[in-house]
Amino acid sequence: MPDPNSSDSGNFTRRIPEGDDRGRLVCDDCGFIHYENPQIVVGSVASWEGRILLCRRAIPPRKGYWTLPAGYLELGESAEAGAVREAWEEARADLEIDQLLAIYSIPRISQVQLIYRARLKSPAVEAGPESQEVGLFRFDEIPTEEIAFPSVHWALKDYRETLDQAVFAPRTAPVVRAPPIAVPGEPDRN
Amino acid sequence: MPDPNSSDSGNFTRRIPEGDDRGRLVCDDCGFIHYENPQIVVGSVASWEGRILLCRRAIPPRKGYWTLPAGYLELGESAEAGAVREAWEEARADLEIDQLLAIYSIPRISQVQLIYRARLKSPAVEAGPESQEVGLFRFDEIPTEEIAFPSVHWALKDYRETLDQAVFAPRTAPVVRAPPIAVPGEPDRN
Repeated sequence: MPDPNSSDSGNFTRRIPEGDDRGRLVCDDCGFIHYENPQIVVGSVASWEGRILLCRRAIPPRKGYWTLPAGYLELGESAEAGAVREAWEEARADLEIDQLLAIYSIPRISQVQLIYRARLKSPAVEAGPESQEVGLFRFDEIPTEEIAFPSVHWALKDYRETLDQAVFAPRTAPVVRAPPIAVPGEPDRN
Repeated sequence: MPDPNSSDSGNFTRRIPEGDDRGRLVCDDCGFIHYENPQIVVGSVASWEGRILLCRRAIPPRKGYWTLPAGYLELGESAEAGAVREAWEEARADLEIDQLLAIYSIPRISQVQLIYRARLKSPAVEAGPESQEVGLFRFDEIPTEEIAFPSVHWALKDYRETLDQAVFAPRTAPVVRAPPIAVPGEPDRN
């Protein structure tokens, strides 16, 4: 999916529109104000008899790496319906949503990920157009060295840790310490 | 806040861009593709010694009615930080987030509301620029006839029902049955 916050086309300048309190992208040609909003990603950790559905990406970014079925929520869609749709699009999987597993705020990329715990209604899955292949993995079979995104690691860990809990508060993103910034000529502070 | 999905300015036509699978707003003048995304609203039910913070709206929509501190998540902000910011902007309230109370998908308006259970660090609150007044209400003092939005009713009910629960799955929007459509010449099916 193209980046909705990109301004590759249009001749945009960042300025504060009248009555607003922060800079927005305004088109110099037509005056259109492009509000940049955080985006909602919806997805699932979906299982069949203890095995987890993963999809090997057929598209960038991270083509060839494994991910959970997830993608941008569309207009007019509930979060649960979006998670069900993504599993169908990417793995022809038919899901039943259990509960919200995690809400990962990732401010750096202005994303909020809503990941659901779900059950597959059948083990019949196959690659959709955005997947090279799909599979059902036991925990010890998961290709941990070939995972596409950090949040996939988080979700798999959170899923495993809440597996035996019927009711739990949704997990959140781990607090990530920024990597140390190397300053030339100064000793490494780590 | 202006509606980010509005296309009041710009000369937009809805068409399917190359490589996409659904109609998007494309500017006829400059070619800019305006992706319309669902929006994230973040807010809180925040309490001080059993009393709930409410704000009387100073701006449309529903000016003069009571609401919870809530608003659109900004770029580069976590959901929790957004809820804290909104409480400060609307009620000069200093919050400590407890856990996610509810996630209300409202597909009709393409909104996902993330409402947190929170504690006020002090009872010192006062109206920010978007509030006429703010107050701390016991349950039996809440002006239920003057509530701004349905989701405020939902959140107050969900808060009350989970008050004694240290851990719970976030609540979701009630399933609303669409009002019956009256067909002229046919008997009312309700």
